[in-house]
Amino acid sequence: MSHPLFEKHRIKLDNALKAIQTRGYWAAYNEMPSPKTYGETAAEDGKRAFEAHLGQKFDLAQPGQADWHGGEQSPFGVELNIQYPVCEAQALIDAGQQAMTGWQAAGCEGRTGICIEILDRLNQQSFELAHAVMMTTGQGWMMAFQAGSPHAQDRGLEAVTYAYREQSFVPLDALWEKQQGKNPPLVMKKHFEVVGRGVGVVVGCGTFPTWNTYPGLFAALATGNAVIVKPHSNAILPAAITVRTIRAVLAENGIDPNLVTLCVAAKRETTQQLVTHSAVKSIDFTGSNVFGQWLIDNCRQAQVYAELAGVNNIVIDSTDAYKSMLRNVAFTLSLYSGQMCTTSQVLFVPAGGIETEDGHKSYDDVCTDLARTIESTLAKPEVALAVLGAVQSAATLTRIDEANSGVLGKVILASKKLNNPEFPNAEVHTPALLACDAADEKAYMEERFGPITFVVKVADTAAAIALSERVVSTHGALTTGIYSTKPDVLDAMTAATWRSKVALSINLTSGVFVNQSSAFSDYHGTGGNPSANASYADSAFVANRFRVVQRRYHM
Amino acid sequence: MSHPLFEKHRIKLDNALKAIQTRGYWAAYNEMPSPKTYGETAAEDGKRAFEAHLGQKFDLAQPGQADWHGGEQSPFGVELNIQYPVCEAQALIDAGQQAMTGWQAAGCEGRTGICIEILDRLNQQSFELAHAVMMTTGQGWMMAFQAGSPHAQDRGLEAVTYAYREQSFVPLDALWEKQQGKNPPLVMKKHFEVVGRGVGVVVGCGTFPTWNTYPGLFAALATGNAVIVKPHSNAILPAAITVRTIRAVLAENGIDPNLVTLCVAAKRETTQQLVTHSAVKSIDFTGSNVFGQWLIDNCRQAQVYAELAGVNNIVIDSTDAYKSMLRNVAFTLSLYSGQMCTTSQVLFVPAGGIETEDGHKSYDDVCTDLARTIESTLAKPEVALAVLGAVQSAATLTRIDEANSGVLGKVILASKKLNNPEFPNAEVHTPALLACDAADEKAYMEERFGPITFVVKVADTAAAIALSERVVSTHGALTTGIYSTKPDVLDAMTAATWRSKVALSINLTSGVFVNQSSAFSDYHGTGGNPSANASYADSAFVANRFRVVQRRYHM
Repeated sequence: MSHPLFEKHRIKLDNALKAIQTRGYWAAYNEMPSPKTYGETAAEDGKRAFEAHLGQKFDLAQPGQADWHGGEQSPFGVELNIQYPVCEAQALIDAGQQAMTGWQAAGCEGRTGICIEILDRLNQQSFELAHAVMMTTGQGWMMAFQAGSPHAQDRGLEAVTYAYREQSFVPLDALWEKQQGKNPPLVMKKHFEVVGRGVGVVVGCGTFPTWNTYPGLFAALATGNAVIVKPHSNAILPAAITVRTIRAVLAENGIDPNLVTLCVAAKRETTQQLVTHSAVKSIDFTGSNVFGQWLIDNCRQAQVYAELAGVNNIVIDSTDAYKSMLRNVAFTLSLYSGQMCTTSQVLFVPAGGIETEDGHKSYDDVCTDLARTIESTLAKPEVALAVLGAVQSAATLTRIDEANSGVLGKVILASKKLNNPEFPNAEVHTPALLACDAADEKAYMEERFGPITFVVKVADTAAAIALSERVVSTHGALTTGIYSTKPDVLDAMTAATWRSKVALSINLTSGVFVNQSSAFSDYHGTGGNPSANASYADSAFVANRFRVVQRRYHM
Repeated sequence: MSHPLFEKHRIKLDNALKAIQTRGYWAAYNEMPSPKTYGETAAEDGKRAFEAHLGQKFDLAQPGQADWHGGEQSPFGVELNIQYPVCEAQALIDAGQQAMTGWQAAGCEGRTGICIEILDRLNQQSFELAHAVMMTTGQGWMMAFQAGSPHAQDRGLEAVTYAYREQSFVPLDALWEKQQGKNPPLVMKKHFEVVGRGVGVVVGCGTFPTWNTYPGLFAALATGNAVIVKPHSNAILPAAITVRTIRAVLAENGIDPNLVTLCVAAKRETTQQLVTHSAVKSIDFTGSNVFGQWLIDNCRQAQVYAELAGVNNIVIDSTDAYKSMLRNVAFTLSLYSGQMCTTSQVLFVPAGGIETEDGHKSYDDVCTDLARTIESTLAKPEVALAVLGAVQSAATLTRIDEANSGVLGKVILASKKLNNPEFPNAEVHTPALLACDAADEKAYMEERFGPITFVVKVADTAAAIALSERVVSTHGALTTGIYSTKPDVLDAMTAATWRSKVALSINLTSGVFVNQSSAFSDYHGTGGNPSANASYADSAFVANRFRVVQRRYHM
């Protein structure tokens, strides 16, 4: 007897299974906030649902609650003033462990069906979640909707699909029959039980609290584990809404809702206690190298899946579409004020300039033309505000000031603060573009998160490719790009990315950008360079999250 | 164009793929040393091939050779006196890294075809390898043939099959086509390259130098990595023969043979340098907890797959086949003098005794009857010598003396030294059986490798199951067993093994033994308790050994 929710979502799962095998374009959830998909009143209902949280206590009925805590500051300057339950880490762990027995008994199909039901329900809350993401992260509305809701849900479904595929390879039982010549055969019955490894902790980040959380959350959950979601202190609401919905769907289906809980920690020590607890067997983390490395060094009892920082870069060798190239790069640097883990930070340009369909362009031409293109991209205020969103953290504001000061390199384009009439307190900042030499490694060769990009002058294309490879191998990167009309240059860059293990975008000039990663098609991170030790999503992201326990007996 | 060796071995691969999905009985290589399978002269040829190595230098034409080293001592007392090349670790790493480019270019199908060709060639050397295994490990002839050759080759093929399946899920390329309403669709071509993570080191053990080495060796190799085989200092010959054959097959197929090399290290520092090298990205290890933990603690740059020690145990609650149960357990304890990582070390028996088809048996009855059964199992000298083999290490001899002295528990059956007329210097020792109380944890609750077994008196069956779970969770185990006629007892033990994550054998009374693990059917280790952090073989054993590097461009 298959689980009813597995049957209900079977077609979606089959399509998703096909998608992860072909990795062409596919999406389960509509990225357009269309009334046809989401309902005529969805936009208004979602906004109201979001607003209903403001100034309230967000109750989750979790065990071990000792206090309330809040304090999220909106980059748009909106008052949030929401309080969340603070629960004892030990109580959450105990409750999660207890809930795992029933979750194991649901079996792979039951877990898969329930996880997809959860994602469908989150999809119905896409507008509410989008407002929550926008107001806590500073993303513009359209990005908050797309990345915060359908794209995140697709990444979650992708993880569930990989988890299903790997678990479904483990047969429930087997008949083992070994011939013994003239004697009767040896016959054994064997049973194989998929068992989650233990409690998983998912540590969210401040910029993409759902997109970067759902893969680990659903990978751990679908493979039979309890999950404790530890959100970033400034982006709790999207996680809290998510956890509430998960708990509701679990309870509706006879699963102890304490399988998934929210851990809001007022003190850093609480988080450290949680992640180093012996019962915690996996940790999914997105964030800074410092805390990521601390997790890897200190949480030896757990498998840590870490997405850290990197120095994403583009090599510009030549192009037959100069203006399109500049527009493409300018949009990448502007989108969400460069606050994506995939935004390019370094552009390598040969000292001798580049050949284009519009003739030779010197290094200085490229700098100037890119600066102008950024300005024209953001010339219309309504476009600029929609594209840039707001700056999420004070640390990024400090980095912008530093970039503007000229200490990091010659300022080609200074970052400017823009006024947002709708949100007068919003921190809106345009990209800063700096010029420096390849030798100025201290300036460009560490992640400077935010709208700060270096146009680095290199001896020639070969040196640029070599430098790109070294940057990726030693400092990590989630994305690289190259612009070239020469096949041998593209081949050399391709070979370099195989060695440094980083995704490469080639000659992007139209509606796809180097910082975009499409669920079911683009592997986000390779897990092979210092920016991340795992990828969204592949077999390695799920296969080690469960164990197979067998028993056998004579027939 | 598919690789010719992939086509050649396609049927075998398809059968193996079916086997890992159904996990019924299947084997690619005949476990019987039959002339029909292996050839009329295979036995004699293999023996001569083995003898031709004795007293010789085993040349491998590897880079960076600085010296020769040997010193293997045969547990059968045979003079081996073989010298092996000692090469600079850095030279082996450099050469391996260089060879990886061509290996990557061979693609998943090319690598898979070549790996299966290697296994077929090793299969043709089964007699030679069996003698090498027997004379270095002390295994009896039949075990040395089966476990050393066809069973090891099957485990290698199992790893290749899992590796193929996971890699084959990554499409070579994809067409990504996203509709844009009334505008033309966005179309991108994407390529996905499977790239090995780096150099793999496989550290062999002294008792099963092929069976425990081939899974990691072939998993790492098939997924695109270079492999350095670091054999146990006393079981070099089976590894050297293996590496020579691999190098020959690689060279025949246009792959740089330095992809796979043998690292014989005269000094411990050489091994430590090798495994901590930044280019080494995976380590497969079988052996002691001390060195295993050292590897996990110190080789942070690599993924460590470790099979360590444990305290395997059996709970005896009741039986309807008392004599068969005793014979089954007695054979398990006797086989290779208990020197299998799967041999039971502890038997939990209720203080009140057990019910059998032959009436009630007290705890003392069980002790005495098991001792007598072991004696009768080994009553015929030719059987005893074949079953027991010889003791591999001096440390095990010391442990046997300690067990016989009575300091660890009351001696129910003392280990006796037997004379082997064919090999007068062979160290042949029968099992020691000791009685102790559950409270004597210091005696039985650490691994005492070799023919030493404790019959531990527990309050009752419930206490036995609880104790078994605690032993497995805290000290690890690769195998557990239970004898009971009561469904609720079997259910309770099953649930306990789900929590402690260990394989369970139920009521074994005929030709299958708790210490046997059948390739393609039994998962060897779960990876979920301290005895091992990985399993032979499952998806998790292979999925994290390679990375996917993508590139994309507009169409």
